Amino acid sequence: MHRISGESFRAVLAREGAVRVAGAHDALGASLAQRAGFPAVWASSLEISAARCVPDASMLTMTEYLEAAVRMQRQIGIPVVADCDTGFGNNLNVAYLVHEYEAAGITAICIEDKYYPKMNSFAPGRHDLLDVDTFARKIAVAKQAQSGEDFFVIARTEAIISGLGVDEALKRGHAYVKAGADAVLVHSKAKTNVQVLSFLQQWDSPVPVVVVPTTYPDWPFDEAVAAGASVVIYANQGLRATVGALRDTFRAIVAQGSSVALEGDLATLDDVFDLQRLRQWQELDR
Amino acid sequence: MHRISGESFRAVLAREGAVRVAGAHDALGASLAQRAGFPAVWASSLEISAARCVPDASMLTMTEYLEAAVRMQRQIGIPVVADCDTGFGNNLNVAYLVHEYEAAGITAICIEDKYYPKMNSFAPGRHDLLDVDTFARKIAVAKQAQSGEDFFVIARTEAIISGLGVDEALKRGHAYVKAGADAVLVHSKAKTNVQVLSFLQQWDSPVPVVVVPTTYPDWPFDEAVAAGASVVIYANQGLRATVGALRDTFRAIVAQGSSVALEGDLATLDDVFDLQRLRQWQELDR
Amino acid sequence: MHRISGESFRAVLAREGAVRVAGAHDALGASLAQRAGFPAVWASSLEISAARCVPDASMLTMTEYLEAAVRMQRQIGIPVVADCDTGFGNNLNVAYLVHEYEAAGITAICIEDKYYPKMNSFAPGRHDLLDVDTFARKIAVAKQAQSGEDFFVIARTEAIISGLGVDEALKRGHAYVKAGADAVLVHSKAKTNVQVLSFLQQWDSPVPVVVVPTTYPDWPFDEAVAAGASVVIYANQGLRATVGALRDTFRAIVAQGSSVALEGDLATLDDVFDLQRLRQWQELDR
Amino acid sequence: MHRISGESFRAVLAREGAVRVAGAHDALGASLAQRAGFPAVWASSLEISAARCVPDASMLTMTEYLEAAVRMQRQIGIPVVADCDTGFGNNLNVAYLVHEYEAAGITAICIEDKYYPKMNSFAPGRHDLLDVDTFARKIAVAKQAQSGEDFFVIARTEAIISGLGVDEALKRGHAYVKAGADAVLVHSKAKTNVQVLSFLQQWDSPVPVVVVPTTYPDWPFDEAVAAGASVVIYANQGLRATVGALRDTFRAIVAQGSSVALEGDLATLDDVFDLQRLRQWQELDR
Repeated sequence: MHRISGESFRAVLAREGAVRVAGAHDALGASLAQRAGFPAVWASSLEISAARCVPDASMLTMTEYLEAAVRMQRQIGIPVVADCDTGFGNNLNVAYLVHEYEAAGITAICIEDKYYPKMNSFAPGRHDLLDVDTFARKIAVAKQAQSGEDFFVIARTEAIISGLGVDEALKRGHAYVKAGADAVLVHSKAKTNVQVLSFLQQWDSPVPVVVVPTTYPDWPFDEAVAAGASVVIYANQGLRATVGALRDTFRAIVAQGSSVALEGDLATLDDVFDLQRLRQWQELDR
Repeated sequence: MHRISGESFRAVLAREGAVRVAGAHDALGASLAQRAGFPAVWASSLEISAARCVPDASMLTMTEYLEAAVRMQRQIGIPVVADCDTGFGNNLNVAYLVHEYEAAGITAICIEDKYYPKMNSFAPGRHDLLDVDTFARKIAVAKQAQSGEDFFVIARTEAIISGLGVDEALKRGHAYVKAGADAVLVHSKAKTNVQVLSFLQQWDSPVPVVVVPTTYPDWPFDEAVAAGASVVIYANQGLRATVGALRDTFRAIVAQGSSVALEGDLATLDDVFDLQRLRQWQELDR
Repeated sequence: MHRISGESFRAVLAREGAVRVAGAHDALGASLAQRAGFPAVWASSLEISAARCVPDASMLTMTEYLEAAVRMQRQIGIPVVADCDTGFGNNLNVAYLVHEYEAAGITAICIEDKYYPKMNSFAPGRHDLLDVDTFARKIAVAKQAQSGEDFFVIARTEAIISGLGVDEALKRGHAYVKAGADAVLVHSKAKTNVQVLSFLQQWDSPVPVVVVPTTYPDWPFDEAVAAGASVVIYANQGLRATVGALRDTFRAIVAQGSSVALEGDLATLDDVFDLQRLRQWQELDR
Repeated sequence: MHRISGESFRAVLAREGAVRVAGAHDALGASLAQRAGFPAVWASSLEISAARCVPDASMLTMTEYLEAAVRMQRQIGIPVVADCDTGFGNNLNVAYLVHEYEAAGITAICIEDKYYPKMNSFAPGRHDLLDVDTFARKIAVAKQAQSGEDFFVIARTEAIISGLGVDEALKRGHAYVKAGADAVLVHSKAKTNVQVLSFLQQWDSPVPVVVVPTTYPDWPFDEAVAAGASVVIYANQGLRATVGALRDTFRAIVAQGSSVALEGDLATLDDVFDLQRLRQWQELDR
């Protein structure tokens, strides 16, 4: 059985032009995303912290996020894009994270322009930002810290989330490009894609833009790409499907006294063995 | 916000008399099992290894199984019963695992009478057993190694899985009780509960029996209890529901170009925040 | 072989009145400190980060510091006092760390009034402090977060390190006591104990004071206690001895072509086996 | 500050012809070995388990050994050779370890022909071996599992340790070469090098031989190389120096009431900062 290895995120994006990316928190989700046809996986801090039942608020550490990303990357042939929160601190933390993630085989990361410790963008409360120069310096440090050409750094601006508006997001996005960002992620929690569309219309750079249609799910991938987005992240649909499925399953077993009525909806043990690539592993002992 | 702590598995079983237990591999699943009314969680080696896309074949290590069990136990108020494979080696490994699990706050473990490295019971291939005295000695070592009165050791016999039949399972079960087991788990992969029913009818000990109706799901909890079982483990239904839900969700996003048609079936972000107990954590900053 | 367990730091301090504490970064050092007669161990962030060859600058994470502290605590019968930097972020991080450390069996922690990410106190550069109320609130949060009576929270002020002087250190120390601190650590990097002596003379609280005579090593334990200190931490002498010994040993092997001339200075393999308690473990298999 | 990376063990050995290798258990020791002039580091299972105060008896897991090896490799420019015990189980475990170690950036491993769980070679008790074909198959599996050309697999025979003699060691060594081993390690715990010399004299293969002069330290590197060895591992001298230094230091602090008399023998804080490369890291913030 041969080890899995695959293209970097940079290579995949260059080849595809535009890509959809699925959020995941473990190898199981990442593998199912790959099988469904996604060419990359988002190691989401919301998903990873939710799997631990801990708020997405810089409570889990870089150690744990890196571990989660690596556990995914080891089992799939498509690249993991690692959601690295604010970079976990200052410039030293950012350089250190680039060293650690790159050495561990992760080919793309994303850091955002909030203060550490951050709070999840969809949670109530304030979302204060670093000043633009301080965060641009973080991006520059990240790019200097990488060892190979391939490593890919996404700068995420939370300007719209924090209420500063599309113009501030554009100002910041262009500054981050100037600092060396390989892509810019613009985040919004509006009920429609209006803010993000406005951003894309005014975007003045060949550097790709990343969008995350969580609160405006009625925006088809093709339309987002036509509007100028290069990467569309479906960041937490897998998590939310998992919560729904587990909730229903556990309630039904308690209510019905057995799992027999559910069996038709459950994957089989053979499906599970297939995801574990059991047959290929067992061939080693033949 | 107050830390979670709860009863030991021994205390829960004593209070309830008979319990249903849900398999899980992370805190999210464990928490949803608790909310659905399960009084305990099974930290399943099949689930934990499947979440990593690695065969359930002693490839993940005690370190990783313990970490998974602890991550669950820290976030729930019901006890985790940790599936500890074969005990990860010989008597020293068993004593060490008891030290480590008990010190980490886990109150119940289960070890089985196969050779290390084991293969999952539902997988094709041979399932050779240790001789009965060697495994009984492991049980005795486990009981000597525990520090408090509360720790609970389940001896699992794979005699039926390995083709040795119900009589061998009974012989082994009784020997493990003599060695100090707090409960005996009898496993079967028959399409019906006939083997396990036969075992229960001939069981001659006040020590509780644990059953796992994976391949014979049409056996209601109440009937299993009436037949003499004290613990019924729904070991992997949550995992299989997760696989099904992720598969459908990821395929649909790719096929439909967006997640909009799925939104009605997905848990909401507020559901996720609730599982993370975000509001309680945020009150710390008021 | 029986599991190790022991007194909490609170109990040891109450019994002894005044204690000396040895810095360590792994179970080996902690065990040798216990054997030498130290009644407690300091899980030093400088030592732990130095063992990893990473600056003591909030680059290693809570996950890694907790793991290091637990690995020590599992193997010794004396309590570990965990150096927890700044608390790794804001109030949520502090509450989370208390939950995690207490649940893992650590009975005492120390947090300091610098900003996250911190820089080691002996390193050149600025050492800015949180305002006193913000840090006092962290102490209050830590105390509210603990689950049992026994957990012990040390508030460390870096006022003298940051150049704000003894008066500011006293003001802060007393404020932290009011917020609930179980002890106050006053740190200085002067070449003499003059600053710390001045602090002790003006200390106006029954809450114990902790001192760390790294740069003023010529201050005997008995004199420090007579001056009013209750805890004296020898924070990094073990690390510095290790560096010296390894440097000399590795250089000599290269220079001399063999280790034969060194053997008289090296501990024996039997010494190593004794620290691993090999004989006691092997008795399990008799 | 640029990330560390360096040559593989295969490249270093090809360039140097013969190499001395220092045992270590953490980045600190590995870094000091590099600075002393060693061109490679042995991630010793004895050292790593001793640092945890746990017997070297397959009690620590692959997870922990891999983590220790990676923590070293990340901080040095010379290759780590990872001591992987018996391969942690059967052929699946061996293939899995090769995947995991190689993906993590380790370029050389060593596995030995004992049963799992093993006992340290210098410890009293039996040291039973796998039959030669079973272990040769493990070596073949390891070589098939590697992904790049560079990965280096050392087959270690414990035939002499187990009392089977030099002839059996030779038979096994040659069989392991036939199975694809990149080098053979022959281990002895005699008080002299007689057994190992005899092995080298009869060794009939261009594949390099590795020796470990722990119990026969009076064998200069140059003479070992002249006798036919290509790799000489000083496997635990660093650990034993550490134990001695910590023991003396902690005892002296307790006995003398301060560390002042020791200061001349301790490395300085600046030495520690230098090992942490603090200045280079701080330059990131200039």
